Amino acid sequence: MAPSVMEAMKPYWLTHFMLPGQGHPHAQAVGEALENAREGVALLAGCEPFEIVFTGGGTEANNLAILGLLASQPAGHVLVTALEHDSVLGAASSLVPKGWEVETIGCDSDGVVDPEVLAAKIRANTKMVCVQLANPVIGTIQPVRDIADLCHNRGVPVHCDATQAFGKMPVDVMTLRADTVSISGHKFYGPKGSGALYVRRGLHLSPIGFGEPREMGLRPGAENVPACIGLGAAASLAARCAGDVEVGIGDLRDYFSNGLISTLGDKVSIVCEDSIRLPNTMAVEMPGDAKRIQRAARQLAIATAQSDSPPDEITRALRAVGKSSAQIGRTIRLSLGWTSSRDQVDRAIELLADAADGIVAA
Amino acid sequence: MAPSVMEAMKPYWLTHFMLPGQGHPHAQAVGEALENAREGVALLAGCEPFEIVFTGGGTEANNLAILGLLASQPAGHVLVTALEHDSVLGAASSLVPKGWEVETIGCDSDGVVDPEVLAAKIRANTKMVCVQLANPVIGTIQPVRDIADLCHNRGVPVHCDATQAFGKMPVDVMTLRADTVSISGHKFYGPKGSGALYVRRGLHLSPIGFGEPREMGLRPGAENVPACIGLGAAASLAARCAGDVEVGIGDLRDYFSNGLISTLGDKVSIVCEDSIRLPNTMAVEMPGDAKRIQRAARQLAIATAQSDSPPDEITRALRAVGKSSAQIGRTIRLSLGWTSSRDQVDRAIELLADAADGIVAA
Repeated sequence: MAPSVMEAMKPYWLTHFMLPGQGHPHAQAVGEALENAREGVALLAGCEPFEIVFTGGGTEANNLAILGLLASQPAGHVLVTALEHDSVLGAASSLVPKGWEVETIGCDSDGVVDPEVLAAKIRANTKMVCVQLANPVIGTIQPVRDIADLCHNRGVPVHCDATQAFGKMPVDVMTLRADTVSISGHKFYGPKGSGALYVRRGLHLSPIGFGEPREMGLRPGAENVPACIGLGAAASLAARCAGDVEVGIGDLRDYFSNGLISTLGDKVSIVCEDSIRLPNTMAVEMPGDAKRIQRAARQLAIATAQSDSPPDEITRALRAVGKSSAQIGRTIRLSLGWTSSRDQVDRAIELLADAADGIVAA
Repeated sequence: MAPSVMEAMKPYWLTHFMLPGQGHPHAQAVGEALENAREGVALLAGCEPFEIVFTGGGTEANNLAILGLLASQPAGHVLVTALEHDSVLGAASSLVPKGWEVETIGCDSDGVVDPEVLAAKIRANTKMVCVQLANPVIGTIQPVRDIADLCHNRGVPVHCDATQAFGKMPVDVMTLRADTVSISGHKFYGPKGSGALYVRRGLHLSPIGFGEPREMGLRPGAENVPACIGLGAAASLAARCAGDVEVGIGDLRDYFSNGLISTLGDKVSIVCEDSIRLPNTMAVEMPGDAKRIQRAARQLAIATAQSDSPPDEITRALRAVGKSSAQIGRTIRLSLGWTSSRDQVDRAIELLADAADGIVAA
């Protein structure tokens, strides 16, 4: 979390602790701060403040978008891409016992869903399409706008999980044209337990939790004021920095991948290297076993596939682009942050090369 | 929020930011801290750590207890008391369109539910009884253990919303004998957006949100680590202080009510004064209109009924003990905290007396 986000949140724990709905003047001040935070998020997303609903995170935002739209409707058909997050797949799958059909659309080896292939799967009873903006493992960006246009032509609303994209690239919900878009604060230096859902004006959702009505009736319970303030502060920070960050991190990522390839040779490959990708995330197929590399390079926080039954998100993303179990076992996921430096990347390449050499030798 | 809770949380935003499930050694340290926090909550509640599920607050805990137990069952009958929080009533009522019947049990003018009256309403298809431990408006304590014993004799599980009680009086879930018990962090100097549900060992709940399984499969999504750590710290603080606090605050409350009565005379009365009540909360029937008193005494954070359709929690609690609309309109809710002093109470009595005089004169 950014230290400035921490500073922005602090008063709302220690002194401005009232809730916005209370009648006292201090409570009204808290209410104004909450609405300022909402404006900060709306500015980052490119929408109106009243289109932003604060949630407890990205998972809750995805659940609210999907179940808030579908749970009160008669059973139908939902299309999701094979690259979606567990919370999107989980929320959609929770409808299956009620008679819903959830169909998964694959992608090509480039990690991108073909809008025409998706559109061809739309049926008369298709009630929703879920497509993520950016994949957390391989980093590929989906053509959300093209998909949304094709879906809207057929009268089908679109939910876009954009949790991996905010803070790493400019995201404008008007350009995306999705009906709902998920935001997760801790993905861009905001607090854990913060998130939001963009809900296009005019779209009716039902709440998925029950209690004192808050957040335009869509989320009950006392507002987590500090988390909302922190999300607003992180959003303002990201809105100021995202353009520069995108270029800087993208260059550093390329420096990283080029360094790995020149050190370890052609046994190393970057998954979906030629696709449009997030500037900070890459999946790298290494020589040798990824988990052993991870153990050997313990100073690095790298992720590997942990489970293929049920498949974790790394396994699912790599399977979706056609990787074999052997290839998945050799793949590591690396990501860079706003403060990552060339020195750190040089050291990471050194550690990975040492770890891989040892494994190749062993 | 207690400053020591803030200090406990800080590292988990700024340096120990990994999630417990990640493989890195830093993540394992975070995982250990999370389990220590769970132990702190378990110690406060008097249960085993594995019986504590972290949630995003009291509202989510109540929703999880009720919908997690009932949503997957065939429709039946649920008994709730008239004093329950909106999140209990809301979660239960959300089942009505699926064919469930939700029946409300009233209380006497003493603000206490009669266990035998409640037990007599249990039917063959009663699937749950919801009874709060302490009321947030009038402060009365329910005989949860007697109710739980009668319900269990009839094979009916009991949910107890104890969010108002933790930190204000000793609460031991083994003594309460409820099957699920809700905890809310910001009610005892923990962070907003933190809470927990005690789930008796052996009781099976289903999750109400979907995604990456966390918290024994009952709550998906990245753990809000700082909030859990903060809840653990607040629980440890409350476990150390609750006994002393109960006596000290109870004395101060009596000093407050005696002072009000001796200043304003017998037009002032304390609602349910003779019942066993929380040591810090009281509803006071004043001379004159409560909202005008509230406006006149703006330096005080006092609560009044705001809406009778739908009735807010103050209106509902006062109606439940038989107060008329005119009486409800004259009633203020006051509560004291750990740091409240006699000087503050003296000043509050002065402000309330001035405000009431002005109104009586006008």
